[in-house]
Amino acid sequence: MSFSPLVEKLMESLRVLPGVGPKTAQRMALHLLERDRDGGRRLTEVLGTALERVGYCERCRTLTEEPLCTLCASARRDDSVLCVVESPADQLAIEEAGGYRGRYFVLHGHLSPLDGIGPEDIGLDQLETRVAEDGVEEVILATNPTVEGEATAHYIAAQLETHGVRLSRLAYGVPMGGELEYVDGGTLTRAFSGRLPFRGE
Amino acid sequence: MSFSPLVEKLMESLRVLPGVGPKTAQRMALHLLERDRDGGRRLTEVLGTALERVGYCERCRTLTEEPLCTLCASARRDDSVLCVVESPADQLAIEEAGGYRGRYFVLHGHLSPLDGIGPEDIGLDQLETRVAEDGVEEVILATNPTVEGEATAHYIAAQLETHGVRLSRLAYGVPMGGELEYVDGGTLTRAFSGRLPFRGE
Repeated sequence: MSFSPLVEKLMESLRVLPGVGPKTAQRMALHLLERDRDGGRRLTEVLGTALERVGYCERCRTLTEEPLCTLCASARRDDSVLCVVESPADQLAIEEAGGYRGRYFVLHGHLSPLDGIGPEDIGLDQLETRVAEDGVEEVILATNPTVEGEATAHYIAAQLETHGVRLSRLAYGVPMGGELEYVDGGTLTRAFSGRLPFRGE
Repeated sequence: MSFSPLVEKLMESLRVLPGVGPKTAQRMALHLLERDRDGGRRLTEVLGTALERVGYCERCRTLTEEPLCTLCASARRDDSVLCVVESPADQLAIEEAGGYRGRYFVLHGHLSPLDGIGPEDIGLDQLETRVAEDGVEEVILATNPTVEGEATAHYIAAQLETHGVRLSRLAYGVPMGGELEYVDGGTLTRAFSGRLPFRGE
């Protein structure tokens, strides 16, 4: 026995959501059908509208339903610094940490030749034009500290070399509030080689 | 900073799904918008159709888009036994265990006076009619072994008393494959008081 075809199809469709396996999909489908049809209907509408209207910001490529995102539209940011991130979630994390006042550029992924994701797919042609034309003085390569993120940062660095901009990468080291015991070897090695004079702040 | 209004609204809407908090909703929204718009569109369609068309089976109240579910429509089930469960998921679990060949009745919940859920909300009037008219000889009360499930079973038992049907409840005891060490006291007590003659099968 299984559920009716339409209920089964709903469970199947819910599995497009990340981290949702068969059991969770079943729980979600039954919850929506048995307990929260209004919420389900609202989700259908909002998801439909969002998929139709949310696109990329013309300047930084972050997700937005406007031509320009609020951050790009703001006059109060420093145009001379450009921070390149892999996703809008990374951008949000940096904004929430506070302190950074420059602009952003969102790749929506990283280079991955095996998956057929090349420079154009992550907007590197647009990034180069922006750096060439918009008076950018420093590009902070804030891609993820993973093999793919590193490779992408290296590729961008090589691409932008001729444009005479300063290139930087986020510092590596032990995370604040963590315990050394649980920090992996690669990070510890980086933290040692990048050690700073003690200033007793 | 936050995401654009429409993206924020999508995150909010995704939180109707059970077990989805702000962080998971964010991950889901970005996944759909950045990586799987086709899957998202399919989800919108299927969810919309399911919410519109899936209703309750006229006989057993399980979820189905047909007037009768396949189980009720089947001629090969035993009409004299009726198993009352709280949800379609419970029904599926019993069917997957195999062995039961009777019919079902799905409550979609349990009695909960504090939440305003009374007998009619879980179809108990329909259950009584069915028992009175359909030649049911035994009703198996397979509501959950929780306080609410027990209370609901007791209520149904009292309601059906005058109809001269046999009433039974699932056996309580230690779960198969478990270790006694980790079984809770209430279950152990029930398993002792319900102990059976050893037959060395």
